[in-house]
Amino acid sequence: MAARTVKLAVIPGDGIGSEVVAEGLKVLGVAAAQFDLAVDTTEYELGAKLWHRTGETLPDSVAAELREQDAIYLGAVGDPSVPSGVLERGLLLRLRFDFDHYVNLRPVRLYPGVESPLAGVGPEDIDMLVVREGTEGPYAGAGGVLRKGTPHEIATQDSVNTRFGVERVVRFAFEKAAVRPRQKLTLVHKDNVLTFAGELWQRTVKEVGAEYPQVSVDYCHVDAAAMFFVNQPGRFDVVVTDNLFGDIITDIGAAITGGIGLAASGNINPDNTFPSMFEPVHGSAPDIAGQGKADPTATVLSAATMLDHLGVPEAARRIEAAVSADLKTRAQSGAVRSTTQIGDDLAARVAEQG
Amino acid sequence: MAARTVKLAVIPGDGIGSEVVAEGLKVLGVAAAQFDLAVDTTEYELGAKLWHRTGETLPDSVAAELREQDAIYLGAVGDPSVPSGVLERGLLLRLRFDFDHYVNLRPVRLYPGVESPLAGVGPEDIDMLVVREGTEGPYAGAGGVLRKGTPHEIATQDSVNTRFGVERVVRFAFEKAAVRPRQKLTLVHKDNVLTFAGELWQRTVKEVGAEYPQVSVDYCHVDAAAMFFVNQPGRFDVVVTDNLFGDIITDIGAAITGGIGLAASGNINPDNTFPSMFEPVHGSAPDIAGQGKADPTATVLSAATMLDHLGVPEAARRIEAAVSADLKTRAQSGAVRSTTQIGDDLAARVAEQG
Ligand SMILES: CC(C)[C@H](C(=O)O)[C@@H](O)C(=O)O
Ligand SMILES: CC(C)[C@H](C(=O)O)[C@@H](O)C(=O)O
Repeated sequence: MAARTVKLAVIPGDGIGSEVVAEGLKVLGVAAAQFDLAVDTTEYELGAKLWHRTGETLPDSVAAELREQDAIYLGAVGDPSVPSGVLERGLLLRLRFDFDHYVNLRPVRLYPGVESPLAGVGPEDIDMLVVREGTEGPYAGAGGVLRKGTPHEIATQDSVNTRFGVERVVRFAFEKAAVRPRQKLTLVHKDNVLTFAGELWQRTVKEVGAEYPQVSVDYCHVDAAAMFFVNQPGRFDVVVTDNLFGDIITDIGAAITGGIGLAASGNINPDNTFPSMFEPVHGSAPDIAGQGKADPTATVLSAATMLDHLGVPEAARRIEAAVSADLKTRAQSGAVRSTTQIGDDLAARVAEQG
Repeated sequence: MAARTVKLAVIPGDGIGSEVVAEGLKVLGVAAAQFDLAVDTTEYELGAKLWHRTGETLPDSVAAELREQDAIYLGAVGDPSVPSGVLERGLLLRLRFDFDHYVNLRPVRLYPGVESPLAGVGPEDIDMLVVREGTEGPYAGAGGVLRKGTPHEIATQDSVNTRFGVERVVRFAFEKAAVRPRQKLTLVHKDNVLTFAGELWQRTVKEVGAEYPQVSVDYCHVDAAAMFFVNQPGRFDVVVTDNLFGDIITDIGAAITGGIGLAASGNINPDNTFPSMFEPVHGSAPDIAGQGKADPTATVLSAATMLDHLGVPEAARRIEAAVSADLKTRAQSGAVRSTTQIGDDLAARVAEQG
């Protein structure tokens, strides 16, 4: 009998979302049960279909229900039939902002057996944790347009950065860095150009860093960091950065660790004021949707991040071990498996550890 | 006797700047002479030393003199002894903005013989031209700070995008795409989040694109583009993008083509209202300054970009051919040469073609 029940909102979303989430739930269920955790899911149909039917991206009643859950598990949102930005801003970013997911946690790890596009790079070279700010910066939605459609049109886009917002995510990053073997934190910004925001980030890292003397602090301009992700990824341990820079460098992180099919993420409210949300970094991939071709691994790994957040790290480690073993044999056999088969195999590998 | 004289302002700047510029001038001189072009240089001592001595980054009198030149050749600016941003904003960006360098042209080419950090990638896979906007976007310097040093501090950073500014750089990019074999142009932005600026860029590309039916147009979010630079660089031919996105992706471009030591750039005012400026993408590298260790190739290639701009493309091609040949033998011999030796070898290779 389960000692504890987690109320989990499931948002399969668009495209391959429902396929990968189904496998994620399968693996999550097995791992959770081993630690007496019951997962009580409620599915919400949000995304392109709902928008076409009702014009809504996140009805207030749904938002209110989501808020009562312990966590959210999201597949992917986005469809070519919906104008760019509508679902991203109206659903995905709205959840991140409304539920104050100020930490967007993105591990960048090269698993043994996975081929990196980088020559001569192995698992020992890439093991970082990117802590991306999730609730401000250029994602604030501030800005506007004047004289639209005329030769004198001007469009602005404002990055909003607060001490409150920067300090809390920087502190989170230091906490993470302090318990990792290398104890290194790199701030990524562009303080020689974005001087107002950059100075705030630099000063905050310096001040908060004084509380963590065991953590060594480094700084890298975002352009240099983008380059180093490719030619010196071993430089990085924990990286803390702004919302937009984090968006960009974590996609490079996904690329160097074998692609977006393996990249997991957690949109976390560390204070637990609101439910945190876990999702793969990849999108809805409408071109391969419904064909059983999607790799559910990123979604499965996002469930591990969820279990860490829910305080069941042993279960998270088992999922990671299952993924690690699966990726190793995958490299050897080269057999093509369907989304469901990969999910089944991962669930079986977690079960073996029980 | 030279049929034409080019007045060239030379700004060696800081760190390795003077070393690489000396070699660049050497090679430029040989190539130019072959086409009856005399290069009449005037050197300006700007950078960290001047700033320490006078507190000035670009005295008005110097700015006025620079304006009368035909082109500017810059080594690098920046020194650890100067606060971040002072020289970048006060000198480099000021020149780009004051002289309306609205095109920041950055070829991303993998030369034969150069090792890319990407496995299994050859010269045929990477040959793009990034057209980065150079006079607006997040580089405008707009923004500010409220309640500095308090828990309620807020720092903003505003991206300014005008139809005027976007249209002219987009048109330049289409012109370039139209004469390349693949005739493809990719807009890189983040229109699903930066909706105001993104929509302006998208609409402008669509409208200007109607004048270039032979050019196929693609769009890529900046995060996806950053990933594709690493795992599908062959996707790109001409890329047009905003100032900040261009800064980031061209450093990835440098990384995948063998590093920042080879990446050239031109800050161009296509209307010739002001002198254009040519510089390597790399910085001043104070750690290796004065030791003859810097690779002058990026600076030499920037001279080729200059010759293209000055209307002597045959001379530019000779420099590129010299670099190409040098990089090929470099891969074979593996011998370490000094900055001067590389410059001498390149000059000799250009001379051979005369
Ligand atoms: C879909 C998009 C709004 C989102 C972002 O920009 O954050 C995505 O790219 C991500 O990284 O989660
Ligand atoms: C030095 C810095 C201001 C500059 C920029 O951000 O443009 C540099 O990174 C570049 O790419 O030329």
